[in-house]
Amino acid sequence: MGRRARKAAPLGIVLQSGGSLHRQIWQQLRAAILERRLAPGLRLPSSRLMADELACARGTVLTALDQLIAEGYLVTRAGSGVSVAADLPDEMLVPPRSDALRAEIATTEPILPRRTRALLAREPSPVPAGEPPIAFPIGQPDRTAFPFPLWAKLLEQEWRKPAWPVAGAAYPFGHPGLRAAIASYLGESRGFACGSRAVVVTSGVRQSVALLARVALEAGDDVWIEEPGYPGMAASLAAAQVCAVPVPIDASGFSTDAAMAMAPNARLAVVAPSHQFPLGTILTLQRRLALLSWAERTQGWIAEDDFDGEYRYSGRPLAPLRALDRSGRVAYLGSFSKLLFPALRLSFLVLPVSLVDATERVLPSISTPAPLLGQGALARFIADGHLAAHLRRTRLLYAGRQQTLVAAVERHLAGLLDIAPDSGGMHLVARPHPDFAPGFDDVAAAAAARAAGVEVSPLSPCYGAVPGRQGFLLGYAGVPESEIEPAVTRLRNALTSSKHEYISPSP
Amino acid sequence: MGRRARKAAPLGIVLQSGGSLHRQIWQQLRAAILERRLAPGLRLPSSRLMADELACARGTVLTALDQLIAEGYLVTRAGSGVSVAADLPDEMLVPPRSDALRAEIATTEPILPRRTRALLAREPSPVPAGEPPIAFPIGQPDRTAFPFPLWAKLLEQEWRKPAWPVAGAAYPFGHPGLRAAIASYLGESRGFACGSRAVVVTSGVRQSVALLARVALEAGDDVWIEEPGYPGMAASLAAAQVCAVPVPIDASGFSTDAAMAMAPNARLAVVAPSHQFPLGTILTLQRRLALLSWAERTQGWIAEDDFDGEYRYSGRPLAPLRALDRSGRVAYLGSFSKLLFPALRLSFLVLPVSLVDATERVLPSISTPAPLLGQGALARFIADGHLAAHLRRTRLLYAGRQQTLVAAVERHLAGLLDIAPDSGGMHLVARPHPDFAPGFDDVAAAAAARAAGVEVSPLSPCYGAVPGRQGFLLGYAGVPESEIEPAVTRLRNALTSSKHEYISPSP
Repeated sequence: MGRRARKAAPLGIVLQSGGSLHRQIWQQLRAAILERRLAPGLRLPSSRLMADELACARGTVLTALDQLIAEGYLVTRAGSGVSVAADLPDEMLVPPRSDALRAEIATTEPILPRRTRALLAREPSPVPAGEPPIAFPIGQPDRTAFPFPLWAKLLEQEWRKPAWPVAGAAYPFGHPGLRAAIASYLGESRGFACGSRAVVVTSGVRQSVALLARVALEAGDDVWIEEPGYPGMAASLAAAQVCAVPVPIDASGFSTDAAMAMAPNARLAVVAPSHQFPLGTILTLQRRLALLSWAERTQGWIAEDDFDGEYRYSGRPLAPLRALDRSGRVAYLGSFSKLLFPALRLSFLVLPVSLVDATERVLPSISTPAPLLGQGALARFIADGHLAAHLRRTRLLYAGRQQTLVAAVERHLAGLLDIAPDSGGMHLVARPHPDFAPGFDDVAAAAAARAAGVEVSPLSPCYGAVPGRQGFLLGYAGVPESEIEPAVTRLRNALTSSKHEYISPSP
Repeated sequence: MGRRARKAAPLGIVLQSGGSLHRQIWQQLRAAILERRLAPGLRLPSSRLMADELACARGTVLTALDQLIAEGYLVTRAGSGVSVAADLPDEMLVPPRSDALRAEIATTEPILPRRTRALLAREPSPVPAGEPPIAFPIGQPDRTAFPFPLWAKLLEQEWRKPAWPVAGAAYPFGHPGLRAAIASYLGESRGFACGSRAVVVTSGVRQSVALLARVALEAGDDVWIEEPGYPGMAASLAAAQVCAVPVPIDASGFSTDAAMAMAPNARLAVVAPSHQFPLGTILTLQRRLALLSWAERTQGWIAEDDFDGEYRYSGRPLAPLRALDRSGRVAYLGSFSKLLFPALRLSFLVLPVSLVDATERVLPSISTPAPLLGQGALARFIADGHLAAHLRRTRLLYAGRQQTLVAAVERHLAGLLDIAPDSGGMHLVARPHPDFAPGFDDVAAAAAARAAGVEVSPLSPCYGAVPGRQGFLLGYAGVPESEIEPAVTRLRNALTSSKHEYISPSP
């Protein structure tokens, strides 16, 4: 038995070797008081006596007692030594829960509020642990093309000896160097000039849209969004207290006429003209000009989400709305997370110039700044030309993957899924073949595919209230060339072997 | 004149040397169409003819024409060559704004919505550029104590060759390594065990509170918050659709009895027991146990904000509520931004165990994940003992600065401001001396101080609707020892020379 393992000490204290002695005394006395083994008002032995009994220094005992006095468990009065506090609330002075009871707390579902239960009911069941799916996640860039060693070096250089204004401030608008690099990059690659003061760094496209709505719109204003579109966009707009009005797109993209018929007083249009999400439609020039004309005429605003604008494999990118805008009504939105790597979580918003001054002043009170940690390194990455080089490399890579995916689907999924090439983007839309389509449920089919190890995203949740069209989104950008065909054959096997799970019988 | 500067080309195109030729043709033709110099329906000369006139390769002209066809400015019909599109909206076909007009757009204040104008009216005027204030910002740690070179090395190691699951995922709960490091650190330093699954990494204390409210409470539920407290807390709770009820604290801190009298059906209490913000009050043990008893009895929740819990200069930290909690009702909140450096923007929330499963499933749809970029490096920083070492160093540093500040205020501001030492924290509260207090307006006085180059935060805005108490918060942690006394004398000069600006005459 070690020198410090003693039994039968006063007050039931047992000191173990290892760990600080005063901490052990403090913890055990506190437990004894809370468990009522030491009654309220009880006077404790003198510190000298306790130290003798415990065979430790008197200072050790005093340290523990001082802490318990400071915490209110013990009280001290001149001439009467130290006693257990008399005014501890009765109902707390009961034995602590046993480990078994603690485990019960941990596993009992608490009475959750209705709104959380409603959310739970909408969530898919937790995915069983196992092999991660091999393909086709959307929004994922290639896993190996990004130059992480260079990125790590830029981070190291940025943080080795940062200026305190960088390390110590929140920068609601983002790192000044990054704002300047984005402005200059847009001038070169997207053909419009903007000052860096108009650039706000955000942590996502939805945050960009919500921020614009918060500054430019009145609470309750209508906002046109594309249908189908991002599943979360309506919720982000609701958080800015404006009302999303989904406008069905057609083969030419978003139609201002259709939108006017649905919500004539809308004050903002959220559109993705270069490559609509999820369908990939390109907004025609006529439609672009009609939308700009609406904005100029009504002093409305346009949020131009340049989704996938960087990835075009045939033809050149069309001029963005912002480059055609003559009256300062267009906010331009971009994101780096899908171009570089998702954990980066940096996007940006180019404000209409007339909103810059007001936004600068109100931003700190309406928005959480984007994380600053990677912004300086990203500024260098862009300014030194690495972004342009990375986009050139991945454009070739993704164009090849898209071709491989189209060929594999046509070869292995004929009669099940129809697919068509797209002039741009990072995913394709596959639709059930007409023979196969009746009763097709894309959400259930995606679950069957996931169970077989292939991740496909159902199309119908991109529609709001209306019953959406059925299909899959197949992200190919992040899937190595060699994994595409095996994943497609696995998808075929999953779809053919489990039809009863996702095809409802004809009525 | 260079070989490529030619005049009198067809269609008004003038090619300049430098810059790609097909881009110049494309831009100038587009402008000519939009400015109606080329009328809708007009047939263009053949590409061969244009190439001859411009003395460039025919392929160059074709590239430009193809782009304009793809964009919809030009149309092509078999046998009839290329024409300007006939269906461009009339109202867009006007000359573009001149530069002067563009500048006018930039400077004209747009018609902002009422809610943005209301925000603007509440914001202080932009601070005039000049010397940054020398002291006393709140929430700022020391500028030089943090080991940035080590931090940069950890970042570099983390990102040199990251596992793709780290770089490619959003991690709604945070980096697994950081969650484990936080759980282990809390066990050692704050005396309670928690599994890493209960730890959620967030980007701020307000986000932590909002997240808890969103999962655990029904929309419209009452939430007790401390009065005075964080200015933004009520707004964060409102964003989670619950109602903040400010409960005035007294010398013992938050009172459950007072809170019950104000809002008996509250479902959550947000408290800072270790060092109340902004007053520094320590919640007594009796009050802690009474609050825990309320939570157990009513199945209510407690959000324990351990603000400044790491910085105690006398006595040892009291046991947090979470360590006393026997029924799993306490969520524990901490932050690294004030301990290390503000740009880090990483905080955490330890969930009550019974909420872990539900939160894991609903989190991705209700919350933006905290930035991942620094989380791996922070995990290493904590696990390797650097956090504990940094806290030991800065604790000594800050304790010294607090003493210096108290001495300087007593020496130079006697009769103007009263100050008392605090057993912990990173700021002190200074109140107007009784002789000086009548008519004192802390917001106006802080503005006068800032104009003189000293930053002090007014106390009264920490109160909600009720007229708050007057005073200043003086952050000392981030102010080098040698700057404290000069800043205090500068503050004295500002306060004595501008009394008319912030003391209203007696009625």
